[in-house]
Amino acid sequence: MATSTRTRIRKFGLPPGSLVFTGRKKTEQLHTSIMHYGPDRLEEIKSHEIEACFPYRDTDDVSWITISGLHDTEKIDALCRHFGIHPLVSEDILNIHQRPKVEVFDDYIFITLKILDFEKDTRHIGIDQVSLILGDGYVLMFQEQQEALFDPLRKRITESKGRVRRMKSDYLLYAILDIIVDHYFVNLEQISDHIETIEQELMTDPAPKTLNEIYRLKREVLFLRKSVWPLRESVSRLEKSDSPLVTDSIAPYLRDLYDHTIQAIDSIETSRDLLSSMLDLYLSSLSNRMNQVMKMLTIIATIFIPLTFIVGIYGMNFENMPELEWHYAYFIVLGFMFAIAVGMLAWFRRKGWM
Amino acid sequence: MATSTRTRIRKFGLPPGSLVFTGRKKTEQLHTSIMHYGPDRLEEIKSHEIEACFPYRDTDDVSWITISGLHDTEKIDALCRHFGIHPLVSEDILNIHQRPKVEVFDDYIFITLKILDFEKDTRHIGIDQVSLILGDGYVLMFQEQQEALFDPLRKRITESKGRVRRMKSDYLLYAILDIIVDHYFVNLEQISDHIETIEQELMTDPAPKTLNEIYRLKREVLFLRKSVWPLRESVSRLEKSDSPLVTDSIAPYLRDLYDHTIQAIDSIETSRDLLSSMLDLYLSSLSNRMNQVMKMLTIIATIFIPLTFIVGIYGMNFENMPELEWHYAYFIVLGFMFAIAVGMLAWFRRKGWM
Amino acid sequence: MATSTRTRIRKFGLPPGSLVFTGRKKTEQLHTSIMHYGPDRLEEIKSHEIEACFPYRDTDDVSWITISGLHDTEKIDALCRHFGIHPLVSEDILNIHQRPKVEVFDDYIFITLKILDFEKDTRHIGIDQVSLILGDGYVLMFQEQQEALFDPLRKRITESKGRVRRMKSDYLLYAILDIIVDHYFVNLEQISDHIETIEQELMTDPAPKTLNEIYRLKREVLFLRKSVWPLRESVSRLEKSDSPLVTDSIAPYLRDLYDHTIQAIDSIETSRDLLSSMLDLYLSSLSNRMNQVMKMLTIIATIFIPLTFIVGIYGMNFENMPELEWHYAYFIVLGFMFAIAVGMLAWFRRKGWM
Amino acid sequence: MATSTRTRIRKFGLPPGSLVFTGRKKTEQLHTSIMHYGPDRLEEIKSHEIEACFPYRDTDDVSWITISGLHDTEKIDALCRHFGIHPLVSEDILNIHQRPKVEVFDDYIFITLKILDFEKDTRHIGIDQVSLILGDGYVLMFQEQQEALFDPLRKRITESKGRVRRMKSDYLLYAILDIIVDHYFVNLEQISDHIETIEQELMTDPAPKTLNEIYRLKREVLFLRKSVWPLRESVSRLEKSDSPLVTDSIAPYLRDLYDHTIQAIDSIETSRDLLSSMLDLYLSSLSNRMNQVMKMLTIIATIFIPLTFIVGIYGMNFENMPELEWHYAYFIVLGFMFAIAVGMLAWFRRKGWM
Amino acid sequence: MATSTRTRIRKFGLPPGSLVFTGRKKTEQLHTSIMHYGPDRLEEIKSHEIEACFPYRDTDDVSWITISGLHDTEKIDALCRHFGIHPLVSEDILNIHQRPKVEVFDDYIFITLKILDFEKDTRHIGIDQVSLILGDGYVLMFQEQQEALFDPLRKRITESKGRVRRMKSDYLLYAILDIIVDHYFVNLEQISDHIETIEQELMTDPAPKTLNEIYRLKREVLFLRKSVWPLRESVSRLEKSDSPLVTDSIAPYLRDLYDHTIQAIDSIETSRDLLSSMLDLYLSSLSNRMNQVMKMLTIIATIFIPLTFIVGIYGMNFENMPELEWHYAYFIVLGFMFAIAVGMLAWFRRKGWM
Repeated sequence: MATSTRTRIRKFGLPPGSLVFTGRKKTEQLHTSIMHYGPDRLEEIKSHEIEACFPYRDTDDVSWITISGLHDTEKIDALCRHFGIHPLVSEDILNIHQRPKVEVFDDYIFITLKILDFEKDTRHIGIDQVSLILGDGYVLMFQEQQEALFDPLRKRITESKGRVRRMKSDYLLYAILDIIVDHYFVNLEQISDHIETIEQELMTDPAPKTLNEIYRLKREVLFLRKSVWPLRESVSRLEKSDSPLVTDSIAPYLRDLYDHTIQAIDSIETSRDLLSSMLDLYLSSLSNRMNQVMKMLTIIATIFIPLTFIVGIYGMNFENMPELEWHYAYFIVLGFMFAIAVGMLAWFRRKGWM
Repeated sequence: MATSTRTRIRKFGLPPGSLVFTGRKKTEQLHTSIMHYGPDRLEEIKSHEIEACFPYRDTDDVSWITISGLHDTEKIDALCRHFGIHPLVSEDILNIHQRPKVEVFDDYIFITLKILDFEKDTRHIGIDQVSLILGDGYVLMFQEQQEALFDPLRKRITESKGRVRRMKSDYLLYAILDIIVDHYFVNLEQISDHIETIEQELMTDPAPKTLNEIYRLKREVLFLRKSVWPLRESVSRLEKSDSPLVTDSIAPYLRDLYDHTIQAIDSIETSRDLLSSMLDLYLSSLSNRMNQVMKMLTIIATIFIPLTFIVGIYGMNFENMPELEWHYAYFIVLGFMFAIAVGMLAWFRRKGWM
Repeated sequence: MATSTRTRIRKFGLPPGSLVFTGRKKTEQLHTSIMHYGPDRLEEIKSHEIEACFPYRDTDDVSWITISGLHDTEKIDALCRHFGIHPLVSEDILNIHQRPKVEVFDDYIFITLKILDFEKDTRHIGIDQVSLILGDGYVLMFQEQQEALFDPLRKRITESKGRVRRMKSDYLLYAILDIIVDHYFVNLEQISDHIETIEQELMTDPAPKTLNEIYRLKREVLFLRKSVWPLRESVSRLEKSDSPLVTDSIAPYLRDLYDHTIQAIDSIETSRDLLSSMLDLYLSSLSNRMNQVMKMLTIIATIFIPLTFIVGIYGMNFENMPELEWHYAYFIVLGFMFAIAVGMLAWFRRKGWM
Repeated sequence: MATSTRTRIRKFGLPPGSLVFTGRKKTEQLHTSIMHYGPDRLEEIKSHEIEACFPYRDTDDVSWITISGLHDTEKIDALCRHFGIHPLVSEDILNIHQRPKVEVFDDYIFITLKILDFEKDTRHIGIDQVSLILGDGYVLMFQEQQEALFDPLRKRITESKGRVRRMKSDYLLYAILDIIVDHYFVNLEQISDHIETIEQELMTDPAPKTLNEIYRLKREVLFLRKSVWPLRESVSRLEKSDSPLVTDSIAPYLRDLYDHTIQAIDSIETSRDLLSSMLDLYLSSLSNRMNQVMKMLTIIATIFIPLTFIVGIYGMNFENMPELEWHYAYFIVLGFMFAIAVGMLAWFRRKGWM
Repeated sequence: MATSTRTRIRKFGLPPGSLVFTGRKKTEQLHTSIMHYGPDRLEEIKSHEIEACFPYRDTDDVSWITISGLHDTEKIDALCRHFGIHPLVSEDILNIHQRPKVEVFDDYIFITLKILDFEKDTRHIGIDQVSLILGDGYVLMFQEQQEALFDPLRKRITESKGRVRRMKSDYLLYAILDIIVDHYFVNLEQISDHIETIEQELMTDPAPKTLNEIYRLKREVLFLRKSVWPLRESVSRLEKSDSPLVTDSIAPYLRDLYDHTIQAIDSIETSRDLLSSMLDLYLSSLSNRMNQVMKMLTIIATIFIPLTFIVGIYGMNFENMPELEWHYAYFIVLGFMFAIAVGMLAWFRRKGWM
């Protein structure tokens, strides 16, 4: 959470629309990659110059323009100006702690959302931000670093497989969103695997570190939720927008995307519920163990304390203790104590303590 | 949950509309079964060839076409193409981890939902997916395996009992949905029986395994909820759709179905509430028992520790201990200790500890 | 809950609209009772024949037709057919586990709801179902057994007191609903009395059986809630329906009924909240007691264990223990131990443990 | 809660609109007080006769008619008939357990709400009911007893201070409501002072009576909530009603009232949240103390039980125990035990137990 | 909470619209500061006289009029009258415990909201109120004391940087709101840093003061929430108002502000969730430690109590105890006890207690 608010501090006092990059620099150099394609043609350009993107604002085909690395605010600014994008939008692109949202303008649609990445080793969920601008004939994609995530889509375009080459820029936008949302499930899957592991631990051997793990995971899921929830409303707004940029032909795709988003949210909510239950389970488990420990102590103490009292009696040094002189007294006392111990044990067994 | 997200992973990176079966193969061979009927005629065809279904797209009567087994994606694809179904719908049919939903298209309505199966022995709720397509004059039903569930409906058609032979395909759809929702109650009944059993255990003899059972059941109910909740909205959307496929005559039936769905949801929510209360009850039960154990220990220790101290005193070896030489000292001390013990017990009884 | 789902099982596989009585037979014989009245006339008919009701479908006055006992499905069916009632409605009348609802048809309105009965001895809430059909000039009332509940209303009609004789059938319907909802308060009152009793127990002497009682009551209130909540929507739908059967003159009465329903729901929610708090209170109470027991044990053990150690020292048999031979050693040791005990007690008192 | 439902029981079976007073008689005699005023004139009448109010139904100025004492149902009935009030409204006026509500009729508006009174000594919240009827040129106010609450408003009218003398009856209604809602804050203030006192107790010295106090307060706040929540909707309905009785000029006043109501509800919700947290805090506090007690016991027992064992060894009476005869054995053993005790203490200190 | 209701008490009984300052006097003297600017001109006036503001009601440029210090109610009143502001609004300006809200009047818009200030040392959140009135060509700002917060905006205006000099008064209003909301993030950041510190403490060394800290923070966050939540609705109302004072050109800015408000609310909700989880974590942590203490005690007691019993046996003074005379009996007994101790330890280790 610290990070999501820190950005605001760094910018505090600056005029609205000030372009400040609020993240850590994740890539050395700004990198642009352009895929310009139509049903029959395909062109790929990679460059470190932002100006390479400028010609693709007005073409008859579709251009997928990816800008990786957001720390060079001047270049981003130049690009946004060239494409006629509102300063507040440019600001949101550079603020990587933006809440996911969709904004529909007259000649473009702005979408910002999160890419999740559950790192298996640290079991930490990494969050990257992707901003998309859908214009007439182009999709601008801004990301903090180059994401391998989109390679299958690039390949599909290159190999002219699937619908994407025949469709317009709105379908490309959908295809990108679809990949991101589908990738959520990869992460959710790993989280639920992790939850199952913890469940196993809880059942067999609850340890304080399990508790910390539950809390940590709960925290992660909380942040995950914060990243995914607003998407629901965003996709719905996209679906319902009457912008000419979103054609009727992709309506079923957006509805599908919406369903997947809700399914992802469902999974997150289920994870939350499970993690809450697990905390209760942990507490109950602890109480169970405490109960066992206490029973153990009570059984031992209840048997031996009275016996120790008895042997104490015959350890007294009174001059006149008739029993001490009886010949079999020692053995009688031993037998008596044995009988008490056996009786106690039987009684415990009947009470279900053993 | 693991399973519900795994599907997305397997498909990750494929173009939308890619037909991939995401389940385990539950039946050896794809199996089609067609009931073609009108008020006066009835025809039944069973086949392993998908092409057997093709002629039934346009008939004057009603055709109930069941496809069991979804692993043969090519055949399913062929069928869907023949019936003019959108590729995203075909994808949803094959993705058995689909969230229940209804989608209304111009010339067909797509419905996907879950069949529940509480297995009595393992006390595990099995979930199968059924997809339905209502077209003009036919209902396509896709299921993972052949379900005995629908036999009574088949019999009703065969024996020409009830309204079904006289009505159109929308009534058939309703009849199928009605059977599925009614079957939820069979499962909910078994879950509530199970909850009652656990309650009994909790009251009489709470054990750690009871705790695990509660947690497990809570988890199951959580998934059950995830399967049934969306149905409410689906049925409502079906009821309110102005598609010509849904005639006015089945409106009261759909309203009835809607009521049953809400009743099922109510039952699930009640189960959830009860299971949550049971966890609290378990914890309280544990505390109660701990309290009893501690009282036992305290009573024993409080009586015998002071007495042991007293006998310890007269076990000391000082040369000058006048009491040791008194003639009745031993008996006086015994009597004194007896008096202490009795006094303590009386005090405990008055405090309500015994 | 078991019972509310069991009905579906018994009917599973039957065609929709199948008339199956789903309750236990609560009365020996079906019993019909007709009050046919207008401002100036009053006629009462009691019979065991269902046909006795038939002439009252079309009269100029108001007929209140009560059918007690629902096990004779054929007779109910005949009646429903005669009054032109949809088969699904007949089914709902016979299914006594129906969720409360209102359905507005063209020429009649169907209402089903619950009568509650808190049995003082068993402290169990009994639930009976009543179904009402408001037609033009008649109210059909179906109940499982004869209810003394409606006697005051019958008396009012007979004695021509109040508004009821002058008004139409919709007022009669309202009067019946008003009695049922008012009766909820009788039950809620008894439940809250019971809650207060448990509170008293909790404060003075929390016992495991109090815990079970809280849980049991929580369960009852949960089911109560399930029975009363849907009524809110039902009455609201009745109020807003534009059916000619509901005249403007009873609008304020329905609004009043709606207010009462909400007040009943408020009471139920408050009971739920209180019962939840009580569970926490119980747990805290237990912890308090445990704390006291532990303090007791700790005080005793902390005083006597060190003293027992000291007397142990002088019970050792070493040949060279100079103190043993000192003349006043015994008394010095006794005094020393007494000082320790007093010091400890003072310390405990200062720590607030005593 | 008992009381809020008891009224229904007393009335059970009576026809709707039956006038029954459902409270305790809080004042000896019905008392009417009339303020009849315009910008330039002011008349005050006090009487025990209800007929004194009758002439003020139709005047050109504003009449504020207060009736204190509701046990004389006949007089109230006569008044209501004279002012043309619906019998159900009269019933609601007399039923002092009415849920706060607003009802807009053609020529009058009926409002019922609660006056709260936190009694400092018993720390109990007293609830009185006030019913208001706004007609054209008059406000009828029904209260259980004479309330000093409204004296400032009376004084303002008498001294012709403020807007009230110049405005119409709707402003008078607003002024009355404003006083009642403002008075809520006086009570809420006292409750939050009380909560702060309990917080102090919790931090410094949590005792079982603190627990009961929290529970009691939680209960009170629950009932407070029940009394204030519905007011929100009521004021909103008043604001939005298009009745000619509510003129445009008081719209900002009603909006202000609405804001205050929401602020009161906010305070109540905050109190609820705080009280819930306090219960958790109490439990944690208890656990903390238990922990301390247990540590104490464990330290004492862990040091002295082994030492007692050692002295026990040398208290054995074996004939052949070489150590007993060594000359410094006693002192060596004493030193050894001292070393053990010191070592243990150091170890406990390192573990942070002391 | 005490403070937020106290204001009402002080004013109780006064007519609505009475001007009473409800805060503590935070500044010695009322202070006015006027920035009067257009694209090409800039004028700054600072004064202690309220009349200095009067000329700026009607100008062609934009005037930002700041009044610091609200205790001089007469001057505020004079100002409000001059600007034609409704008495209820003046009252709200002076009542510093006002709930955040927006009210749209015909020729001005009234906004009141909170400035938060997390004081690092006391870790207490200070809350100041700011009221804003947007008129045609001016923004009136009322604050309790001079806030350094707005200095960057003043500087931007002075230095003619950014959009503000070219835009109208609605943009100025937005710029002020933007600074306030951005400042929330500075505070939220510090709160979440604090939460992280407590988390660290919880994991490593949970102490009772940690518990109090959690509770205190929870309380603060509760009040924070109360201050920020209503802002959401306020900004939304501002955005949707069709007042001519809010021009279309600032619509995207308001939408941006709305997004930031929601993001702030998200952060607060996350903090709440985390703090709730932490309380559970604390309790679990305590239980863990208790468990460890109990295990320690049980291990010590379970090993030494039986051994002490054995040495007690051979401390008895019976005349006939054959073992006492055996030559190696002492060593055999020692060995036997050693074996028991070792066996017990092994058993504990196998049970996972050590």
